[in-house]
Amino acid sequence: MVGIAVLGAGRIGKIHAANVAANPNARLIAVADPYASAAQSLAGALGADAMTDCEAAIDRNDVDAIVIGTPTNTHIQLMMRAVRQGKAVLCEKPIDLDLLKSQAAVEEIEGLNGRVMLAFNRRFENTFAAMREAIIAGEIGEVRQVIISSRDPGLAPEDYIQYSGGIFRDMTIHDLDIGRWLLGEEPVEITAMGSRLVDSPLMEKYDDYDTAMVHMKTASGKQCHINNCRQAVYGYDQRIEVFGSKGMLLQDNLRPTTMRRWTQEATDAREPLLNFFLERYQQAYKSELDAFVAALVQEKPLPVTPSDGLQALRLADACVESVSTGRAVKL
Amino acid sequence: MVGIAVLGAGRIGKIHAANVAANPNARLIAVADPYASAAQSLAGALGADAMTDCEAAIDRNDVDAIVIGTPTNTHIQLMMRAVRQGKAVLCEKPIDLDLLKSQAAVEEIEGLNGRVMLAFNRRFENTFAAMREAIIAGEIGEVRQVIISSRDPGLAPEDYIQYSGGIFRDMTIHDLDIGRWLLGEEPVEITAMGSRLVDSPLMEKYDDYDTAMVHMKTASGKQCHINNCRQAVYGYDQRIEVFGSKGMLLQDNLRPTTMRRWTQEATDAREPLLNFFLERYQQAYKSELDAFVAALVQEKPLPVTPSDGLQALRLADACVESVSTGRAVKL
Amino acid sequence: MVGIAVLGAGRIGKIHAANVAANPNARLIAVADPYASAAQSLAGALGADAMTDCEAAIDRNDVDAIVIGTPTNTHIQLMMRAVRQGKAVLCEKPIDLDLLKSQAAVEEIEGLNGRVMLAFNRRFENTFAAMREAIIAGEIGEVRQVIISSRDPGLAPEDYIQYSGGIFRDMTIHDLDIGRWLLGEEPVEITAMGSRLVDSPLMEKYDDYDTAMVHMKTASGKQCHINNCRQAVYGYDQRIEVFGSKGMLLQDNLRPTTMRRWTQEATDAREPLLNFFLERYQQAYKSELDAFVAALVQEKPLPVTPSDGLQALRLADACVESVSTGRAVKL
Amino acid sequence: MVGIAVLGAGRIGKIHAANVAANPNARLIAVADPYASAAQSLAGALGADAMTDCEAAIDRNDVDAIVIGTPTNTHIQLMMRAVRQGKAVLCEKPIDLDLLKSQAAVEEIEGLNGRVMLAFNRRFENTFAAMREAIIAGEIGEVRQVIISSRDPGLAPEDYIQYSGGIFRDMTIHDLDIGRWLLGEEPVEITAMGSRLVDSPLMEKYDDYDTAMVHMKTASGKQCHINNCRQAVYGYDQRIEVFGSKGMLLQDNLRPTTMRRWTQEATDAREPLLNFFLERYQQAYKSELDAFVAALVQEKPLPVTPSDGLQALRLADACVESVSTGRAVKL
Repeated sequence: MVGIAVLGAGRIGKIHAANVAANPNARLIAVADPYASAAQSLAGALGADAMTDCEAAIDRNDVDAIVIGTPTNTHIQLMMRAVRQGKAVLCEKPIDLDLLKSQAAVEEIEGLNGRVMLAFNRRFENTFAAMREAIIAGEIGEVRQVIISSRDPGLAPEDYIQYSGGIFRDMTIHDLDIGRWLLGEEPVEITAMGSRLVDSPLMEKYDDYDTAMVHMKTASGKQCHINNCRQAVYGYDQRIEVFGSKGMLLQDNLRPTTMRRWTQEATDAREPLLNFFLERYQQAYKSELDAFVAALVQEKPLPVTPSDGLQALRLADACVESVSTGRAVKL
Repeated sequence: MVGIAVLGAGRIGKIHAANVAANPNARLIAVADPYASAAQSLAGALGADAMTDCEAAIDRNDVDAIVIGTPTNTHIQLMMRAVRQGKAVLCEKPIDLDLLKSQAAVEEIEGLNGRVMLAFNRRFENTFAAMREAIIAGEIGEVRQVIISSRDPGLAPEDYIQYSGGIFRDMTIHDLDIGRWLLGEEPVEITAMGSRLVDSPLMEKYDDYDTAMVHMKTASGKQCHINNCRQAVYGYDQRIEVFGSKGMLLQDNLRPTTMRRWTQEATDAREPLLNFFLERYQQAYKSELDAFVAALVQEKPLPVTPSDGLQALRLADACVESVSTGRAVKL
Repeated sequence: MVGIAVLGAGRIGKIHAANVAANPNARLIAVADPYASAAQSLAGALGADAMTDCEAAIDRNDVDAIVIGTPTNTHIQLMMRAVRQGKAVLCEKPIDLDLLKSQAAVEEIEGLNGRVMLAFNRRFENTFAAMREAIIAGEIGEVRQVIISSRDPGLAPEDYIQYSGGIFRDMTIHDLDIGRWLLGEEPVEITAMGSRLVDSPLMEKYDDYDTAMVHMKTASGKQCHINNCRQAVYGYDQRIEVFGSKGMLLQDNLRPTTMRRWTQEATDAREPLLNFFLERYQQAYKSELDAFVAALVQEKPLPVTPSDGLQALRLADACVESVSTGRAVKL
Repeated sequence: MVGIAVLGAGRIGKIHAANVAANPNARLIAVADPYASAAQSLAGALGADAMTDCEAAIDRNDVDAIVIGTPTNTHIQLMMRAVRQGKAVLCEKPIDLDLLKSQAAVEEIEGLNGRVMLAFNRRFENTFAAMREAIIAGEIGEVRQVIISSRDPGLAPEDYIQYSGGIFRDMTIHDLDIGRWLLGEEPVEITAMGSRLVDSPLMEKYDDYDTAMVHMKTASGKQCHINNCRQAVYGYDQRIEVFGSKGMLLQDNLRPTTMRRWTQEATDAREPLLNFFLERYQQAYKSELDAFVAALVQEKPLPVTPSDGLQALRLADACVESVSTGRAVKL
């Protein structure tokens, strides 16, 4: 039985805490959040202790592992405190918005043989995982092209955009990770293109983009395209195509039901997509937490490493550079 | 080169005449229709002779084969005149609305070794034909259930309904033929259900139904369901499902394009269906005419026989009987 | 907080017990099953008492409501014991295989104002429920035809078939209930057809059928077709089509993932269906239990009544009669 | 009635000649090809004169318009001869593989008010055209991203690759044209990526690529991605997605039938795609020819201009440059 403290009682912390509580091999010891009422409300509902001091939660003897769902700028500090005590960590991405600080943290973790898993939850989504397995099983031969479409249902509020680190480090980073993972080889070259088509004044204000395209290429020539937009009126659009020498794998979006409507105006019309990541990746979040606990219980390597987080951040930084220079960035 | 006269210059005659003209092994000799202007307009456009006397057209020396697209009550007379002269016939279904008269005609045709093909055009539709081939090839093992949905886009006008012979002899008859053909065995039992849901007063006036369901069973127990309606707001609905011991075959409707629309209200919405049989079965009409000509040129048996027409009419009559008695009719 | 005892620790009891345990307004008090080890294993995992005496579980003071998942021939006895004590019941279908006994039980329940809900779980499946809501909202105008396809993935073992009550009372009964529910009117006429195409000797032995079709009609003429088969190699096939005056609603099967494979042999190929009802209706079972608890907590009428169960059984019996007489049965 | 000579009796010439013959407002006067037997065979079947001298065919008095389907390096010479005589031209793309020569030709054509239409046939494909109309009608608001997938079924033979001008000028050029057309604005920036994943030695030999990705951006920031591959085992893959502020339009590939197969291994499996461009764009070639003739008859502007061809070639050249420099090319 793994004793777990969840740090952060916001929307992502709530999901992790519920998944910890539902896992038969884990016990939710505490929920910590500086906002006492948030911590109390979440901890109370799940029968755990509420704390306002995240560091104290890490230090508890009955806590074996930490799930970090606090603001990005606290990730490294909390993660390192846990690692230094030999405790396992599941940390929301990114490690940090700053590459050098992230790099230093990862080096220290590796030096300490720390057990840290980065929360790239999409890798645990059933269909994504089945695609990856089919690729590894050779079903489509050699991968040639990966096409990732990833669009948010609506523009986040200004105070989110302001501290997001920009579209590439905040949004594209998930797709960069999935791209690497499905290509099965490290990208050696990346190019990006950014536009301001949803809310141009807001994007200019923060030197950010709301619409983007990215190209990556591996040493052997495998290619990946990513497209992003901060707003898609039909819902949270998450599609992947993997094209290989022996075939292709596609994946569909999820909707609340499978109903199709036929009327005088249209046939076979389906519902709008599940609204956003909490609904869309509900199963993925659960499977991710279960994989974290299973790796700890079975003393196996954690399935997503800090260096995966570092590499995704490097790619995101390279996107930013490519947009400003108009050049492909060599990695 | 087969010299062909098309009898009837209405909407179905126009299709046949154009297909004859386009067939490299056939020559359109004449178009005959009592309405001189209709005959002239169609014949003129396709470089054939216009005639008002259908019988004279049959009698011409340069005419080897006849395509009959005239009103149902003229079918037998014209068909038999051609058969007696040893000319081949492609006749629109049904032979006649009266089973006994049809039966007598078929007997005479068989006695004369007449070459008559009944125009069950759907058998020549690409997907229908591919399904039948897949069944024969054993792809889905033994057929167990055939499900046929067949709905018109809109109710025909009263003067059509009045002389149609009723929904079972006019509309269901096509599905009865397809059902027999896909079951691969003769039905031995049939039950039908009729309702008046589209235009109840009109249907009562002619003792007819606008909405129907039919069940058929073969000696070995294979089952077929047919559903019909005289009006479907989303277009001409033509679907088939064949379920067997090793799998299932489905088939889709046709639309003008493959475009799918995604909006705030709906995703993956396709266009309404192709409006009606002339558009939906355009390819089938052409392939049917080509199969007729090919069989004549290659001196092979015609692919749909008058006894197929007779059998479909028998099934339609049994539907009428079943609706009035509430019993399964044994065949 | 509703105290609940689950009677029966078989596969269906396991599902209900877990759903009770997960419902925030319910408490799983006890699991009772004559097989002590089954009761202990299930109760232990969920922190409830294990009992071998179902009647004693009903009688407990801390038990407010009963979920019955025991063999069919025990349903009435257990249900009535609970009702007489004023306890609420969620009972697996059918009430009993015998119509008269069922009828007597329902009358007694009604006389006592008993709170009994029949477990027609499909009514709680998300897409089924959305279709019903869309119909009630008038989205497709007046319902004209309902088409239900319902096929099991594989033939049940002989000892199941032997006591099942036959395909109509065991399998079709679910579809008869859904048909009534979607038609929105009582059927007044029903016809059925049975075949032995999967395992003819077995079916003959028990005078049963493995392949069936049913037609129902309401007083206003609305029609319903049901097709069943005890074996579909591609998985548990559950599809519904509702055709109305203003449009049509379709619903799709569920698969483990949304992946589609493209190869030299096929394009857009999806995975086989979720294997059987436990997987396919997982969400429906949970929503059903939640609806039961919610109705008790909010003191609202239970959403599926014993007379719904009775009516479905009447329809199933009429199917059996129709198969043997070859006549439509008037209801 | 427009008198037309078709130059070139190869596979593309055959299509154009048949479409001319079938157009009621055009007359196929002559088919010219240096290979006498090819010219004779095609002309004979369609009742036209066979010629071996393309220039003589242009010069004929009864020839009003020319369709050029000869090798690329003859396009300019033949086109200009026709233009100088005031004859209309439908010319296969590209004008020439050399941008400067093409530019000079276009300038001369414009100076002479020549009537030349470039054969970007995809613009006339029903679904492509419907997408463009829906965009113009504002159905999806402002276009933000266009995603074009375009993959050949199999690698062309070496002697085709050798003279093709490279993947960007030969294959991508169609997608570059469609991209421009759907964006509705001129691209101002383009980046490309090329790989050798199908036949690396062959591609190295000709300094060419078999797998490519392209990004384009317009002045207002609209983005376009194109992916190409010279080989897709599942058939000729042609898909387009247009994402806008109010919705998205998708389009599907075409298959020989609409049949879907369900077996133990897969469900909903469709057939491989129509093999290649002759089958896939059959309707588009016909509509293109009809649009050419209709514009001549109605004395309206030709729907695709030589400067469209020039612009597509410029984009293709910029792709080549971008691949070699690793930079975005400003246009």
